[in-house]
Amino acid sequence: MFFASDNTGPAHPAILEALTRANEGYAMGYGADALMDEARERIRTLFEAPEAMVHLVATGTAANSLALATMTAPYETIFCSPTAHIHEDECNAPEFYSGGAKLTIVGSEDKITPDALRIAIEGEETRGVHGPQRGPVSITQVTERGQVYSLDEIAKLTTIASDYALQTHLDGARFANAAASLGCTPAEMTWKAGIDAVSFGGTKNGCVGVEAVIFFDPAKEREFELRRKRGGHLFSKHRYLSAQMAAYLADGLWLDLATRANAACERLVDGLRALPEARLTYTPQANIIFLDMSRAMHQRLLAGGAVYYVLAGDPEVGPSDEMLPARLVCDWSITEAQIDAFLALAKG
Amino acid sequence: MFFASDNTGPAHPAILEALTRANEGYAMGYGADALMDEARERIRTLFEAPEAMVHLVATGTAANSLALATMTAPYETIFCSPTAHIHEDECNAPEFYSGGAKLTIVGSEDKITPDALRIAIEGEETRGVHGPQRGPVSITQVTERGQVYSLDEIAKLTTIASDYALQTHLDGARFANAAASLGCTPAEMTWKAGIDAVSFGGTKNGCVGVEAVIFFDPAKEREFELRRKRGGHLFSKHRYLSAQMAAYLADGLWLDLATRANAACERLVDGLRALPEARLTYTPQANIIFLDMSRAMHQRLLAGGAVYYVLAGDPEVGPSDEMLPARLVCDWSITEAQIDAFLALAKG
Amino acid sequence: MFFASDNTGPAHPAILEALTRANEGYAMGYGADALMDEARERIRTLFEAPEAMVHLVATGTAANSLALATMTAPYETIFCSPTAHIHEDECNAPEFYSGGAKLTIVGSEDKITPDALRIAIEGEETRGVHGPQRGPVSITQVTERGQVYSLDEIAKLTTIASDYALQTHLDGARFANAAASLGCTPAEMTWKAGIDAVSFGGTKNGCVGVEAVIFFDPAKEREFELRRKRGGHLFSKHRYLSAQMAAYLADGLWLDLATRANAACERLVDGLRALPEARLTYTPQANIIFLDMSRAMHQRLLAGGAVYYVLAGDPEVGPSDEMLPARLVCDWSITEAQIDAFLALAKG
Amino acid sequence: MFFASDNTGPAHPAILEALTRANEGYAMGYGADALMDEARERIRTLFEAPEAMVHLVATGTAANSLALATMTAPYETIFCSPTAHIHEDECNAPEFYSGGAKLTIVGSEDKITPDALRIAIEGEETRGVHGPQRGPVSITQVTERGQVYSLDEIAKLTTIASDYALQTHLDGARFANAAASLGCTPAEMTWKAGIDAVSFGGTKNGCVGVEAVIFFDPAKEREFELRRKRGGHLFSKHRYLSAQMAAYLADGLWLDLATRANAACERLVDGLRALPEARLTYTPQANIIFLDMSRAMHQRLLAGGAVYYVLAGDPEVGPSDEMLPARLVCDWSITEAQIDAFLALAKG
Repeated sequence: MFFASDNTGPAHPAILEALTRANEGYAMGYGADALMDEARERIRTLFEAPEAMVHLVATGTAANSLALATMTAPYETIFCSPTAHIHEDECNAPEFYSGGAKLTIVGSEDKITPDALRIAIEGEETRGVHGPQRGPVSITQVTERGQVYSLDEIAKLTTIASDYALQTHLDGARFANAAASLGCTPAEMTWKAGIDAVSFGGTKNGCVGVEAVIFFDPAKEREFELRRKRGGHLFSKHRYLSAQMAAYLADGLWLDLATRANAACERLVDGLRALPEARLTYTPQANIIFLDMSRAMHQRLLAGGAVYYVLAGDPEVGPSDEMLPARLVCDWSITEAQIDAFLALAKG
Repeated sequence: MFFASDNTGPAHPAILEALTRANEGYAMGYGADALMDEARERIRTLFEAPEAMVHLVATGTAANSLALATMTAPYETIFCSPTAHIHEDECNAPEFYSGGAKLTIVGSEDKITPDALRIAIEGEETRGVHGPQRGPVSITQVTERGQVYSLDEIAKLTTIASDYALQTHLDGARFANAAASLGCTPAEMTWKAGIDAVSFGGTKNGCVGVEAVIFFDPAKEREFELRRKRGGHLFSKHRYLSAQMAAYLADGLWLDLATRANAACERLVDGLRALPEARLTYTPQANIIFLDMSRAMHQRLLAGGAVYYVLAGDPEVGPSDEMLPARLVCDWSITEAQIDAFLALAKG
Repeated sequence: MFFASDNTGPAHPAILEALTRANEGYAMGYGADALMDEARERIRTLFEAPEAMVHLVATGTAANSLALATMTAPYETIFCSPTAHIHEDECNAPEFYSGGAKLTIVGSEDKITPDALRIAIEGEETRGVHGPQRGPVSITQVTERGQVYSLDEIAKLTTIASDYALQTHLDGARFANAAASLGCTPAEMTWKAGIDAVSFGGTKNGCVGVEAVIFFDPAKEREFELRRKRGGHLFSKHRYLSAQMAAYLADGLWLDLATRANAACERLVDGLRALPEARLTYTPQANIIFLDMSRAMHQRLLAGGAVYYVLAGDPEVGPSDEMLPARLVCDWSITEAQIDAFLALAKG
Repeated sequence: MFFASDNTGPAHPAILEALTRANEGYAMGYGADALMDEARERIRTLFEAPEAMVHLVATGTAANSLALATMTAPYETIFCSPTAHIHEDECNAPEFYSGGAKLTIVGSEDKITPDALRIAIEGEETRGVHGPQRGPVSITQVTERGQVYSLDEIAKLTTIASDYALQTHLDGARFANAAASLGCTPAEMTWKAGIDAVSFGGTKNGCVGVEAVIFFDPAKEREFELRRKRGGHLFSKHRYLSAQMAAYLADGLWLDLATRANAACERLVDGLRALPEARLTYTPQANIIFLDMSRAMHQRLLAGGAVYYVLAGDPEVGPSDEMLPARLVCDWSITEAQIDAFLALAKG
């Protein structure tokens, strides 16, 4: 009953097999391996973007920071949600990689609204050279609180960005879960909705450690590659990144795994909705649940061996009916049996 | 009738005379001039801090950024008000000098409140190594909206900072106006209230261009000096900075000039309070006024030659009773006659 | 006949098996996995350094840059060889991670000599705050030209560094090959010889992609971890780094693989020494050979399918007896048969 | 007898008078003052460059670092002489402002030779994305050792730079002394000889503290202004920079002062050449002399009150005929009487 994060589960066996297969013989390093050509083509085909720049790195923070640094001058500011991973969970990596750009928090909600975005951009009036200059807008899909922007919502935000000639970045650490949730194509969720650059995650969805950075306009490819090398993110034995991504995109594995995780999450949500001691704090649309649970429920779950993050308060000490917040994440490998066991404990 | 900023007025004649006097003969460069010894001693005496580190730079942005960079690791965040100059008006200089640290906005008010500060620090939970780590708290005195923290308010904030072992910085671009407003000593407003480092401004209050950076604990003096040099802020002909600061502190000039500016501002405020077409938006406590004025009043003032910033809207086009925001700043050189002329126009 | 680089060969099967084994069940992310405890203990035991800080990253550039950034203030300079990887092959990563420190080239030889080091340190007189301040000394073992510092040579360099209170870093991308060449222990080659920090490479010697950063004094561990996270080098599914390093250190695999590569290189060197058309430019002491070969020999080798770097000139066009420089690297997987086939082609 | 530096002498009275004159009434800040328009026009006229970007800062390190940062990506390297101020005397400011670019030392001479430049550029082969990428070439005129590049020498260097599509920067901290020495126009020494950007110094040649940055192609003006603000180098009371530069360029003052300094230096050189105890180490072509003098001569000079830098050795202790190196700089204010007094002491 492991609901701590989608990075605590195992990689899918097909990914490991791909690594082992890739381990045959010699291969040129630094992205010049044949498997990278294969991975790049699969991404271009999947995104219906035959000219797109595609490069691989091993962590989501690297993907986001390198993408944003390539889009942002050091005297600019990046617009993002208060819950954005780039703001809350990357220990100033975007500031570091951009050479000291700022992050401007948009509104106070997990999902950026068009109104909040327009206010934030207007508020960040540049005052000549005195204020930070307006830079790109970055949104996370699935959001850090488990919500999913509709295609229309994305398009509304990118339209506002383009009103101010700003570029847009999509942090897709859980891209597949969002696509599965919306039932849309990768192209629809990105460039067709006005997105310029994507961090396309593999790690959380069954890979060992690989993320693609995609720029639909390849004009800055050389700069991106130099920034990646300078950041220490260019792998010498690159084939092991390529192999993961190629396998992840073969036979729809990327979507299957996300569909599985989302379905597991839905089963869990359905069960939790029936429990008076639990109260969802965001409407789960993919594979993450934020909820409040009574201390009694926490105690039953933790005693029974469930693993997840209690976000505040001490589940052991205090009134048994006090509600304490928690996060549950379903990775691709969670089974129905595990969910049912969790719900059984939860029910008490 | 120049109310645009306290950096648009002339320097006090005593400062210019000091420059001319300093221009005699030879003097060692880079701060090794005898006038710097004099300036340093005057600051130490004024602040009752015989061991304090004291160095001069020419701009407020340099003073703030160098002070904060010396106090902040690149993976930390600086807590500041949403109206802070370091956040709004330094084009990411603190991020640049600190090597990519973050600024965390505290609350939504011009003046940081103890509650807001505690919430912000708590909210910036560091999540192990994932989030930005907590860094120094920076407050501005006089604030960017013309308010003044009481000694008690400062002490409350520094106490909270010290609860979390955080250091505190005071952006004193208008330090003298605040001291004049509170009627307190520099020591009372800084280290006696728990402040660790100060940007002590001279430029806005009658100098040509000089700011002192003061650290009450000199442990990081060498690092500060290296950062200043590396930033291009160490003057070769340093005597012209020293001379300004020494003259500024001679015979209480610093306090006289601020007292004059504050008194002018008070006269202006008194006049404006009597006018139904004007409405103060912050309570002016030093030499800056934020207010709304009717379009008709704006038109009379601007047509009559008054110079100040209209912060939003077009004073020429629209209903004559619509209120448009403005900022008025009184520098040391504003005369009663100018204020009365302004008020006469304002009255209509 | 693949002699392009030791990063073009396959990983050792034991490493892949370790990845597959590590893929069972759930594991906490970000280095909190049980395998990391195992890997750390093995490194501490191997280095006879029970208190050492040990962390893993995936690339050599990350290891070097993060180690050096933790040791170097932005106003300092790092002393290194003109052939150093950190100078020539990391696209300014050390400058980036250190926030803009400088690299000072020591002498003009691949191996730093004590005299050259002393001259470089003295030459980098710090001129008060005007010049770059003296920072750490970094040496590469095996050097980028295939040479190995003796223990005595290392000790001489670290002694000079310590005369100036400077720290020392060892870039051990080919650490194992050096240890195999010297027949010494890891402790003898590092802290017993005065080294403070090590990049301990696994990638080039049979791993998929893993390097350990070791600081014998753990005082800056927290800073290192924050810098790693901020650089995007903290792996969420960290177990796959841990598994590699744990397997690499099990049963002496690290040393076996390096011994194998060195032996292959020696066989190749012996063969080449007998050929009048080949001339070694450095004395190979580990698994890298720099040599000049006649154009005719290049043509025979390349036509026969040998893969390696020709460092200058066109092997196809020009006099057949002209000597053109080349680099040959033997990885752990090169067989005697491949070497003999290469030599047969070389002989003509 | 002050020969320590041209920044230890007084500013010319006309500069101080200009400051005092500029102190009348109100003036908009941040470069929007009327005097800046005047200063800019004078520079454009002087340089025969009606479209050039012209901005002012207060220090030479700021001018150089901001100019170079605007010309250099963080993954590039700047080519400069081993004696370059940007390399030796700016405490890594160019590295800081450029976000971590590298400086590549060209040859081993004070003056860069065409051959050394071509070798350095070729040597800095970029190795795909692995090495630092080639960036601008920066030369200093007058050099740090008192030499002057001829127009032909400059043109040869800029031609090589342009063979590699690299831009060129001229550090003209002593621009006027070089122009006086060559008897050429500013245009001839810069854009007509292929220079793209200039740090045009005023401070060392009789100003209080002002340097202009000139880009003959204004395409990056906005970026430069943002970098200047972000560096804390935009003066609020900008009129005091403008006034200096405008006065410096009025009535040929800039050239008169340099001519005076050069003539004084020539008188000194002539006298020193006649002395067997002195030996010039570089041929002085402007206002700086590097020479060796016997310890006995040093003792006579220092005892007699001469002030200058002894570059190595202890002038008090050792054989009286041992030669010790020194630097002598003549500023605009040195009189013939002072020089003759110095020579009299030197002679003994």
